[in-house]
Amino acid sequence: MSSSIPRIDQQIFVVPSFTLECGTELKDAPVAYKTWGRLNEARDNVMVICHALTGSADVEDWWGPLMGSNKAFDPSRFFIFCANVLGSPYGSASPITTNPATGRPYGPEFPPTSIRDDVRIHQHVLIQHLGVRRVAVVIGGSMGGMATLEWPLLSPPGFVRRIIVLATSARHSAWCIAWGESQRQSIYSDPAYKEGYYEPSEQPRNGLSAARMCALLTYRSRDSFERRFGRKVHLPATPPTTKRSEAREGLITPPASPPLEVEALELHNDGLDRDGREPAPTPRPIFSAQSYLRYQGDKFIARFDANCYIHITRKMDTHDLARGRVASEGTTTDELLAKTLAMLPPHALVISIQSDGLFTPPEQALIASHIPGSELVVVASGEGHDGFLVEFEEINHSVLGFLQRELKDLYEGPLVAEDGEADFAVKKESVFGEAEVDLTRW
Amino acid sequence: MSSSIPRIDQQIFVVPSFTLECGTELKDAPVAYKTWGRLNEARDNVMVICHALTGSADVEDWWGPLMGSNKAFDPSRFFIFCANVLGSPYGSASPITTNPATGRPYGPEFPPTSIRDDVRIHQHVLIQHLGVRRVAVVIGGSMGGMATLEWPLLSPPGFVRRIIVLATSARHSAWCIAWGESQRQSIYSDPAYKEGYYEPSEQPRNGLSAARMCALLTYRSRDSFERRFGRKVHLPATPPTTKRSEAREGLITPPASPPLEVEALELHNDGLDRDGREPAPTPRPIFSAQSYLRYQGDKFIARFDANCYIHITRKMDTHDLARGRVASEGTTTDELLAKTLAMLPPHALVISIQSDGLFTPPEQALIASHIPGSELVVVASGEGHDGFLVEFEEINHSVLGFLQRELKDLYEGPLVAEDGEADFAVKKESVFGEAEVDLTRW
Repeated sequence: MSSSIPRIDQQIFVVPSFTLECGTELKDAPVAYKTWGRLNEARDNVMVICHALTGSADVEDWWGPLMGSNKAFDPSRFFIFCANVLGSPYGSASPITTNPATGRPYGPEFPPTSIRDDVRIHQHVLIQHLGVRRVAVVIGGSMGGMATLEWPLLSPPGFVRRIIVLATSARHSAWCIAWGESQRQSIYSDPAYKEGYYEPSEQPRNGLSAARMCALLTYRSRDSFERRFGRKVHLPATPPTTKRSEAREGLITPPASPPLEVEALELHNDGLDRDGREPAPTPRPIFSAQSYLRYQGDKFIARFDANCYIHITRKMDTHDLARGRVASEGTTTDELLAKTLAMLPPHALVISIQSDGLFTPPEQALIASHIPGSELVVVASGEGHDGFLVEFEEINHSVLGFLQRELKDLYEGPLVAEDGEADFAVKKESVFGEAEVDLTRW
Repeated sequence: MSSSIPRIDQQIFVVPSFTLECGTELKDAPVAYKTWGRLNEARDNVMVICHALTGSADVEDWWGPLMGSNKAFDPSRFFIFCANVLGSPYGSASPITTNPATGRPYGPEFPPTSIRDDVRIHQHVLIQHLGVRRVAVVIGGSMGGMATLEWPLLSPPGFVRRIIVLATSARHSAWCIAWGESQRQSIYSDPAYKEGYYEPSEQPRNGLSAARMCALLTYRSRDSFERRFGRKVHLPATPPTTKRSEAREGLITPPASPPLEVEALELHNDGLDRDGREPAPTPRPIFSAQSYLRYQGDKFIARFDANCYIHITRKMDTHDLARGRVASEGTTTDELLAKTLAMLPPHALVISIQSDGLFTPPEQALIASHIPGSELVVVASGEGHDGFLVEFEEINHSVLGFLQRELKDLYEGPLVAEDGEADFAVKKESVFGEAEVDLTRW
């Protein structure tokens, strides 16, 4: 494993054999997961949370403010389960885990996986290993929303009672496919990529960082960027010391070329200098928007792996809820999709972020329009796609209200776990032996 | 010069000495330009057109449908002038032209230039070389719009009568600065970049191509992409032959890994196969949206240079109409900008593309709101930023109507050039000797 990827305090269940949608069999495939709260006697107070592209099983890390007593994710009421997707660097089988056939990390040889593979292997853990009988609700945003939509379709009718999806789509759009392609190309351009056969400590940092910068912009909105950065300049506290940062400014300048010119122009941007011709020598500023992006790029390469990034973006490309499910002659693809959505459990909660330019509100409106009795909530947020990870208050309010209304029974009995006890309950008593739900035909 | 950059049939005027805003003096700086039509006796029937980031002086190449008798750009009425910006690979002084001090191309040592430098050196050619006395109208979109806004502020009051700007801003936004940074990072990641010191024939093609893919997406809209591509797959007529295209798919697979799996998943996307486990071996399809992006990336590297791309995106970062102009204590940057816009010639035409996510309609609304008597036209187009290069009919209609209304005098007299004659008139009689407009104090 890439040494720099943070370790998470989580459980690992090893699935001895798992056949992927592509036909390849994974052997001894680890599935990393975390749980909160305790299963009730009926083994049905289960909340499944599905993470997004760069997330992990550690819900508290990325949706922490939603978790707690009397909040949307309440371990005193629910047995909460979140598992890491295949291909992610956070513990499940992926390019950075060991291929039992070779004894080396899979690297670029890790076979392609789909959203459906993730759901099926996570269901295996939840049912075969943890003994769950029924799932009260599945919740996820972005890629997690894709998995959420697949959950009921890959299990017997009634197994999943309710779903909640945020900022997602029923099929990955051309727009998202194209952004993924553009980001992968940045990684391919990095000489350290070596067609994926790099050493973990020598991954294509520059390419992955550039891909993240691009991705991050697609997660934000124009207006949120403007409010935060405008044309502010960033004056480094100390002169840049690394060759890399110099080179990236295009300012490693030979003697003939004056290294301070860009400074001058940029100081003018700040309105500090009235005359454009005679700048005073000062430390070189860059725009705050630039320095923020670089910071985010650097942060990302310390916690993610390039092969994993390529893998998961390609996984999302395969997402199409109707794929292979309801084919019938003369039906349009739109009709197929509508029919598939209509097969989902009724009374879904669908949440949009108004300024989301990546998974746009009409995509969620489409989902809601075909699931009978659905509720569509548009969060009036300017934060773009990332709104689903940021607008905690409104999301907590909508999700909690929905759960209390739709899953009344789970809010009526005694608590399944007390505060403080909840986090540890599962580790002691989560294994219930033989599964009672037969998933083999799904 | 990079051998692959297409030659344009254009004029070159060499400016013996030109001091840039950064303080560096360019010696023997070529300025490439094209003209259409003929100067009238008053030398004031002048239309200046300003090109965008990857454009050239050859207006017919990128705004061709707007050019012709009785169209917006009418060479039988106007003497039309378009010059190539500094730093562009299309003929003006740039990283790919020769530095007279060294006898070698400037490469990364080409000094930073600003939008104002472009306007000033183009004015020099127009006035000193072509003898123009007054400009009837300046027109430009995107980066060309930035230059258009600068034109009146860098010349005596009344020298520019009217301006028309499309899909542009009064100051480059944090959003645009960040996208430029993200694209430059892709180039920096390419080993062929060599801090800019590459041979013209060995430029960082992969990085530049990735940057273009990203940029192109910012020029489009989510919905236009969806309409055009959806989840369609692209089946290559022949199997891929180059290592590059294989590697980029992550599909150069060693024996242990099945190379056809992605095909299976993607064929399912097309709804062709009901069972996800046993795909038939077929040529590997990729999504049309991907193949389109790759095609555009390949096309771009054949016509552009990476150092030039870095240079011009940085040039745009310096754009702030208020920079250094109207500083006064206690004034906010918004107030400074408003004051500067109010100094522009009244009765401007400002055109927005409704779906433009890069230079957003509120940015043009801001421009129009501060220029007295301006007209704001929002083109109801779903094409995104590129709409200004695509929505010919509506743009032609708005621009022509505006010109006929605002520049009545130029439409009343006899034609300055007949059809067929217009294109050649200037080459014979465009030089009028000494300039009569003194720009030295602007």
